[in-house]
Amino acid sequence: MVPKSLSEARVAIVGLGLMGGSLGLALRERHACREVVGIARRPETVELALRMGAVDRATTDLAAGVADADIVVLATPVRTILRQIPMLGSLLSPPCVVLDMGSTKSTICRALAALPDGLQPIGGHPMCGKETTGIEVAEATLYQGKTFVLTPLPRTGLQAVALAASLATTAGSRVIFLEPERHDRLVAAISHLPYLLSSALVAAAEEVGQADKAVWDVAASGFRDTSRLAASDVTMMLDILLTNREAVLAMVEALQGQLGSLADCLRREDEASLRALLEGARARRSRM
Amino acid sequence: MVPKSLSEARVAIVGLGLMGGSLGLALRERHACREVVGIARRPETVELALRMGAVDRATTDLAAGVADADIVVLATPVRTILRQIPMLGSLLSPPCVVLDMGSTKSTICRALAALPDGLQPIGGHPMCGKETTGIEVAEATLYQGKTFVLTPLPRTGLQAVALAASLATTAGSRVIFLEPERHDRLVAAISHLPYLLSSALVAAAEEVGQADKAVWDVAASGFRDTSRLAASDVTMMLDILLTNREAVLAMVEALQGQLGSLADCLRREDEASLRALLEGARARRSRM
Repeated sequence: MVPKSLSEARVAIVGLGLMGGSLGLALRERHACREVVGIARRPETVELALRMGAVDRATTDLAAGVADADIVVLATPVRTILRQIPMLGSLLSPPCVVLDMGSTKSTICRALAALPDGLQPIGGHPMCGKETTGIEVAEATLYQGKTFVLTPLPRTGLQAVALAASLATTAGSRVIFLEPERHDRLVAAISHLPYLLSSALVAAAEEVGQADKAVWDVAASGFRDTSRLAASDVTMMLDILLTNREAVLAMVEALQGQLGSLADCLRREDEASLRALLEGARARRSRM
Repeated sequence: MVPKSLSEARVAIVGLGLMGGSLGLALRERHACREVVGIARRPETVELALRMGAVDRATTDLAAGVADADIVVLATPVRTILRQIPMLGSLLSPPCVVLDMGSTKSTICRALAALPDGLQPIGGHPMCGKETTGIEVAEATLYQGKTFVLTPLPRTGLQAVALAASLATTAGSRVIFLEPERHDRLVAAISHLPYLLSSALVAAAEEVGQADKAVWDVAASGFRDTSRLAASDVTMMLDILLTNREAVLAMVEALQGQLGSLADCLRREDEASLRALLEGARARRSRM
C-alpha cells in the first residue's frame, strides 16, 4: 500500500545537489519521514550530505539507495532524470511513488508513463532555486513559501498524489496541479524566456564592452537584476531549453513582437502609444 | 569665485523627489554645506522636506530658491530639466555651478551650453535610484557606494568640476568622467535596454496570462527580478527614452540579434553552439 502519511514513508532522494539536498534538510528538520535516504554520484557528496544532516543514510549505489523506498524523488538535471527513469522499473517495488523535480514536465511525464504498472509516477516541479548549484548551497528553507507544481499522470492514484502533495507542503511549499503541457507553456513564459533574455542582455552589453570597457563601470542594480539569470548553470538550462523547445521558441517570438512594438513607437516618436504600452506593463508588474 | 570647498557653498536643489530629497539628506547628515535650499512644485513637498531634514530652507519659488546659490542641482525629470535650464540664466549670478542629475546627457548638455557666460554648467548622472518616486522614499544612503557620472562641458572650469565631484563623493559616490554622447551610449546598454526588456517580458507573459491566469501563480524570483524595472515611473522613462532615442534603438537591435542567435541555435537543436553562447554570457555575468 502507498503509505497513508509521510511520517511512515522512507523517502529516497536521487541527486544531492541544491534541490535534493535542500529537500532532505527540510524533511529531516521537521522529522517528517521515517527515513531519508540519499543517492549521489560521488562519495564526497555522500559524506557532505551526512555531515550537513540532509539525509539519514546515503550511498552512491542507486539500486541500494532506492530499495524499499516508499517515495523516490528524482532531483537530478532533466536529462539525467530521463536516463534514470527506465532504470527504476527493475529497482522499485510497487506501489512506490516516483516523483521527479525536473524543470520541464512533458518529456519527463512521457518517460514516467512507461514505468511498470504498480509504480506510482507523478511529475513535479518546485518553483525555487538559485543560480549556484551543489549541496554546499542547500538550505532547509529553499522550498518555504514557494509554489510546487505537481503534474499527476492519468494513472497516478489519489493516495500517491496526496503523498507527493504532503511532501511538498511539508517542505513549506504550496501545491498547484497542472497538466504537463500546460506547465511547460507557462514556465517557458516566466522562467525560460527570462533566462534567454538575461543572456542576450549580457551579450548585447558585452558587444558594447568590447569597444568601451566603461560600460561595466556604469552598470548598476537595474542591469544586475535584469541579467542575474544569465549566471545560471548552463548544463541545467540546456536540459531545460532542449526539452521545452517549442514552447520556448514561441515565447521568444512573443517577446520579439512586444519589443518590436516598443521600438516602433520609439522610432516614430509616438509618445502616446509608447506611454500606453509601458503603462500597461507597469500596472501589471506592480500587481505582483 | 566658485567656492573652494563644499562646506562654504550654498546648494540649491531643484526638485525634491527621490533623487533631490536623498541628496539633501546625504549633505545635511554630513554637515557638508553652508546651507541646503530646496525648491519643489508643491507646498506639501516643501513641508515634508523640512520635516524630514532634507533641507535647511525650502520654497516653491524657483527664483527665490536659487538666488545666491553657489551650486544649483537640477533633480527633476529630464524634460523638466530641459524646460528649467533656459530660465536659470536670469536667476543665477556667476560663477554659480549648475549641475543636473538627469539620466541622459547629450540633450541636456546642449541646453547647458547655452547658459550665459560666467555660469559653470556641468552634466551629471548618479547611477542609483528606485522604481518608486517621491521624497517619501528618499534615503541619505541612496548614493552610497554608487557611481556618479560627471560630463563636464568644454567650458566647465576645473574649480567647478572639483566642486561637483566633491558633492558627489560627499554623498558617498565614486565619480567617473565621460563625454555626454559616450555616457548616453553606455546607459542605453545597461539601463535603458534592460527597462524595455523588462516591459516587453511583462507584456509577453501577459499575452499568456490572458489565456491562462495560472502563469502568475508559477512566476517566481527569476521572473520578478528580470521584470522588476517594468514597474519604473513611465513619465521618467519616457523622458529618458525620447532623449536617447538613437542609442536605445541601436541597443534594441543588438539585443534582437543576440536573442535571435540563441533562438536559431535552439531551433536547429545545435547544442554545442547554444552552449558556447550561454557559457559566454554566464562567464561575463559571473565576473560582475
